[in-house]
Amino acid sequence: MIVRSIVTDAPQGGVQIESRDMDYSSFPVILKPILTGICGTDRGIVNGALPFAYNPHGENRLILGHESLSMVISAEPNQYNIKAGDIVVPMVRRPGKCLNCLIGRSDNCSDGQKHEAGVTGLHGFMRDEFGDFPEYLVRVPGNRKDDIAVLTEPVKNVEKVFEVLDIISRRSIFTDSSGAYDGKRAVIIGTGSEGFLFALKSMDYGFSTGITNRHPLDSTKAKLVEDTGMGFYDYARAGIREENGIDLLIDTSGDPGTVLRFLGRMNNNGIVVLFGTNGKAQPAQVDGEILGSIVEKNLSIVGSVDGARIHYEGALQDIYQWKAHYGKAIETMITARLRPDDTGIFLKKPADEIKTVISWE
Amino acid sequence: MIVRSIVTDAPQGGVQIESRDMDYSSFPVILKPILTGICGTDRGIVNGALPFAYNPHGENRLILGHESLSMVISAEPNQYNIKAGDIVVPMVRRPGKCLNCLIGRSDNCSDGQKHEAGVTGLHGFMRDEFGDFPEYLVRVPGNRKDDIAVLTEPVKNVEKVFEVLDIISRRSIFTDSSGAYDGKRAVIIGTGSEGFLFALKSMDYGFSTGITNRHPLDSTKAKLVEDTGMGFYDYARAGIREENGIDLLIDTSGDPGTVLRFLGRMNNNGIVVLFGTNGKAQPAQVDGEILGSIVEKNLSIVGSVDGARIHYEGALQDIYQWKAHYGKAIETMITARLRPDDTGIFLKKPADEIKTVISWE
Amino acid sequence: MIVRSIVTDAPQGGVQIESRDMDYSSFPVILKPILTGICGTDRGIVNGALPFAYNPHGENRLILGHESLSMVISAEPNQYNIKAGDIVVPMVRRPGKCLNCLIGRSDNCSDGQKHEAGVTGLHGFMRDEFGDFPEYLVRVPGNRKDDIAVLTEPVKNVEKVFEVLDIISRRSIFTDSSGAYDGKRAVIIGTGSEGFLFALKSMDYGFSTGITNRHPLDSTKAKLVEDTGMGFYDYARAGIREENGIDLLIDTSGDPGTVLRFLGRMNNNGIVVLFGTNGKAQPAQVDGEILGSIVEKNLSIVGSVDGARIHYEGALQDIYQWKAHYGKAIETMITARLRPDDTGIFLKKPADEIKTVISWE
Amino acid sequence: MIVRSIVTDAPQGGVQIESRDMDYSSFPVILKPILTGICGTDRGIVNGALPFAYNPHGENRLILGHESLSMVISAEPNQYNIKAGDIVVPMVRRPGKCLNCLIGRSDNCSDGQKHEAGVTGLHGFMRDEFGDFPEYLVRVPGNRKDDIAVLTEPVKNVEKVFEVLDIISRRSIFTDSSGAYDGKRAVIIGTGSEGFLFALKSMDYGFSTGITNRHPLDSTKAKLVEDTGMGFYDYARAGIREENGIDLLIDTSGDPGTVLRFLGRMNNNGIVVLFGTNGKAQPAQVDGEILGSIVEKNLSIVGSVDGARIHYEGALQDIYQWKAHYGKAIETMITARLRPDDTGIFLKKPADEIKTVISWE
Repeated sequence: MIVRSIVTDAPQGGVQIESRDMDYSSFPVILKPILTGICGTDRGIVNGALPFAYNPHGENRLILGHESLSMVISAEPNQYNIKAGDIVVPMVRRPGKCLNCLIGRSDNCSDGQKHEAGVTGLHGFMRDEFGDFPEYLVRVPGNRKDDIAVLTEPVKNVEKVFEVLDIISRRSIFTDSSGAYDGKRAVIIGTGSEGFLFALKSMDYGFSTGITNRHPLDSTKAKLVEDTGMGFYDYARAGIREENGIDLLIDTSGDPGTVLRFLGRMNNNGIVVLFGTNGKAQPAQVDGEILGSIVEKNLSIVGSVDGARIHYEGALQDIYQWKAHYGKAIETMITARLRPDDTGIFLKKPADEIKTVISWE
Repeated sequence: MIVRSIVTDAPQGGVQIESRDMDYSSFPVILKPILTGICGTDRGIVNGALPFAYNPHGENRLILGHESLSMVISAEPNQYNIKAGDIVVPMVRRPGKCLNCLIGRSDNCSDGQKHEAGVTGLHGFMRDEFGDFPEYLVRVPGNRKDDIAVLTEPVKNVEKVFEVLDIISRRSIFTDSSGAYDGKRAVIIGTGSEGFLFALKSMDYGFSTGITNRHPLDSTKAKLVEDTGMGFYDYARAGIREENGIDLLIDTSGDPGTVLRFLGRMNNNGIVVLFGTNGKAQPAQVDGEILGSIVEKNLSIVGSVDGARIHYEGALQDIYQWKAHYGKAIETMITARLRPDDTGIFLKKPADEIKTVISWE
Repeated sequence: MIVRSIVTDAPQGGVQIESRDMDYSSFPVILKPILTGICGTDRGIVNGALPFAYNPHGENRLILGHESLSMVISAEPNQYNIKAGDIVVPMVRRPGKCLNCLIGRSDNCSDGQKHEAGVTGLHGFMRDEFGDFPEYLVRVPGNRKDDIAVLTEPVKNVEKVFEVLDIISRRSIFTDSSGAYDGKRAVIIGTGSEGFLFALKSMDYGFSTGITNRHPLDSTKAKLVEDTGMGFYDYARAGIREENGIDLLIDTSGDPGTVLRFLGRMNNNGIVVLFGTNGKAQPAQVDGEILGSIVEKNLSIVGSVDGARIHYEGALQDIYQWKAHYGKAIETMITARLRPDDTGIFLKKPADEIKTVISWE
Repeated sequence: MIVRSIVTDAPQGGVQIESRDMDYSSFPVILKPILTGICGTDRGIVNGALPFAYNPHGENRLILGHESLSMVISAEPNQYNIKAGDIVVPMVRRPGKCLNCLIGRSDNCSDGQKHEAGVTGLHGFMRDEFGDFPEYLVRVPGNRKDDIAVLTEPVKNVEKVFEVLDIISRRSIFTDSSGAYDGKRAVIIGTGSEGFLFALKSMDYGFSTGITNRHPLDSTKAKLVEDTGMGFYDYARAGIREENGIDLLIDTSGDPGTVLRFLGRMNNNGIVVLFGTNGKAQPAQVDGEILGSIVEKNLSIVGSVDGARIHYEGALQDIYQWKAHYGKAIETMITARLRPDDTGIFLKKPADEIKTVISWE
């Protein structure tokens, strides 16, 4: 079958539309994407900035795309009951042989032998059709086709972070005197799509939640902040607010200087989640005093990457609960809808982008 | 009663022997120390290097000493069954009013309103007699008077760290394929008394355990390393060994540069425990790559301070299990035994010190 | 103020409408109920079957009602930001002085000194107006007034059970080989409102979920089962199905014989949650073999009662996520809507009842 | 090699000494037992009372023995560093293919496909020599040969139970107001060897610990109770004491009536561990009230069987810590030391037995 796809040559980069004959006969399920999302990882690969990206073994190209909402075209009978017409989100990571992969948690892969569709050694979902295995497809409840379900992949990262939080926070009493999080304060660094998604989940937990960045918000983002009731401030101008400490800090910037700046404002028993990465960020200095404060305050700083099937499933529930709760405000997170041949989008991020998607229908 | 004590004036520092009339009538239990231990915190206070230390409210001096093995001289009847002749370790922290303090976990104090004997606002145990409350006294099983029981206070820090480890490590499968730690590697930074104590506990857990420092070991420490079977290497000369990654890293140095150097060697899902503090340590640079590796590897970096009653109790079991296991080797950890008026010990650390104690008998 | 209320005399029982002057001056918040729900506990009190129920201290009556959706009429300024016009669910339990109550978890009260509105020593919500404290009011997100939000109180029990499940299940790998629950089987005993609510949450977790009872379903329930996709079987006729074992069993019947019958079908590492109570249920025999199977299979059997603020908050998210997912099917759970003076409803349960509510508007 | 062994024919039973040629060429490690212990399971198999026991595939006999302290005679080079002369405890369970077995936790085997040496499908350790794999051998620290190390296998069950306790108890605040267990009460049902071992560990945790049975203690047991400071009472005479409730109940009897009798005395949030099994125990009645109390009190009732490598390792530390603490008292637990041909011991339990061992040297 001749399949049109958006390809790069990892890790050198570049991007182009290509049509090539592909053999899907070894796959029990054939799918076509409805929407695929673009994130910083895709642009990083295209720009040749991610040295860990690589082509599938023996190939000289990598089909891009790890965020996808897809429809099943055909499926052999399978125990997962995946069938033609199903609306699904395909998982990104595929397991290796380590203990964590064996129990279905390739997001915690111990030895790095997993693969990631569209990133490391496995073709992604930005093509007219692709083949897959039923165990890696997560069905959208009710087989609904809402555009916002394309956010499932980024939201699954959020779900995993809150799973980690639930575990880490058992070090001490982390809830307030009502046994809930209403009296606790969360700050999310970064106003990209992941930043907003972390903030929405943080509000679901009950945290008094603020999102922050080093410049003012454009109007789309400002409206989303207003419609959802989260707080925002431009820390470059407003400074880091001093009135209250921070209980939960989630970073999506990957910028050491910013993280350290907020680290000094953590409350005792506070939890810092590192999610963003930026290999080219400016270094920053850690001194003995800040290191000592991590000790004296019993702080926890945890990195979290990817998510497992259970987080994709939770993500779909989050998305539909947010839709019920916030209505159209959630839909404004999809700020642009392009065609596959608009490959310029990989080279330049629109100023007001929250999430740009490519429509394959 | 005229009581001889070793005092400082916190946070300015200094040290002297002083005899003063003290009224213990409000205390249901009167004790005398058998041994008190000296650690870096005591020297830090004496040297005026710990700005957080302070005298009891309304006083112009602070009696030093938070590591103590003591004997009960007299006790009013109490529900804890503390009675004259009991050998006890008095706890250091005394609770405030936060939720963690209310449940007996002042080691996780949320608001900083706790006090620490000999450090922050409460007189310590370096005096001929002191008064206390039975709820803060931990009885040595069998009322044994072995010198090494004076290590209970530093070991309780170790016990808490491994409690935190037990919680944090539930993020993923952290054990090896036998469900134990034998296939996992721990590195302890620092060869002071806390470093050795962390290493002993790490070996109890089953970790392949190495202790490291930036200079060769003196003969006492070298023999302890040999007798207990832990590994050692001088990382300044040998470099950080490359053959295996690290699963558990425990720092007792408080030195950012050293911690960051080893951080780069962590395995996926690795856990870094920060215990040492050194406010005057040289700063070191964190770049985007190391920050990104915390994310990509699902690392956890946790500070841990102090410990609760349950950790003192566990510490006493550790100490007696180590004595059963290693025999006299454990006793070599007490490298000097001084009299109370040898106050010069607060100003200069002996070259081969593991633990210096003051005998009050 | 003259307030009309539905009262009983606990634990003797009886039910009547009464108007009495009540003084709410000590309460910072005044509310009026929109809807109140009726459950088995209410009928048990009215029938004099719950010996643990009691009137407020010094009173000869107890105002009924612990399931409520209410509106704030007036509120003094408060840190919880509760204000006139807010739509809230008032919490049932009010804390005593034990450690669990102190940290906001009166649902885990250690010493029984808590109170429960409408049940034990505290007036309930079945009255034209009531006073309360802001810390016990849980705001409905968006201040929505949907009838189904009256289910928040029963759903909070479900939320707590799944919190307990999340903790208990860490004994072993309880998820399937995909790290999720899709390959695991849950059975819910009982087809009352709690049974259906447990089944909905179980499906959210991904369990293959069946609900069971000892008679066929009426048409309303049969349609709900069909519309939500849960399974059902009449175990009295069909027997306990043998083809697969059970991983999660949740009982809402309180009937020992039924629980023991299903207990024999548990898989290794299975979890049994006991929620239903029925003091007058027929006894059943436990033999050495069934006791031994609890050991050999590493089973966990856990009772769970009530829930805390965090579970009320989670319940509201569940309800709105279910509404988004299942639409009108969820609304069919409210099977009757009566007026306050229809007190006969406390004496006779309608044949097809899932949830009967009383409208106070 | 002609090997003398103690054999049965499972599940029919019987016991005899047999010498047969055995081929150990497929085993990298050859061992000889020093001591093997006898427990109720061995007697149950010999008496034909354990229907789940079975011979190795294709054989008509089963070599008995799952409790062993052994010495390595020869070993091929291996990554576990097991070598000739090592003193080891061989593990009982050998993994199948389920997720729990894959991660080294065959004690939590999901599908029953594991084997148990001397019990289910695998020859045991009661023979002059046996072959094994290094991954199933747990080295005694310091290669010590103390008789009491033969208790490692039964103590590993205790270690697992307390691991389960640590997880289950996180449902609520289970510690007392000092954050420890000193104010909490444990009752252990049964005064066999497991009963005493559970009681010793319970005291290590700090619980106020009592052991109970339905008849007075003989002098050996009475002295052990006195020397270790645990409490004892004969509940058949003394009744179940009413003054305090129970926080932790551990049953080693497998008798439903006894368990239910004590179940009624549990405090809120109490934990009941079922460890003993007795398929022929008299049935007892569970009524709606006792079932309801499990709910209302948030009780947890958990079965626990076997243990993993980490529990064998912990058991060895327990044993040596107890030896350090209680001295010769611990050694009195070995109440008889027989030769292999004293096979009558399998048919009749000595009146004062705590642990009978067979010496193979």
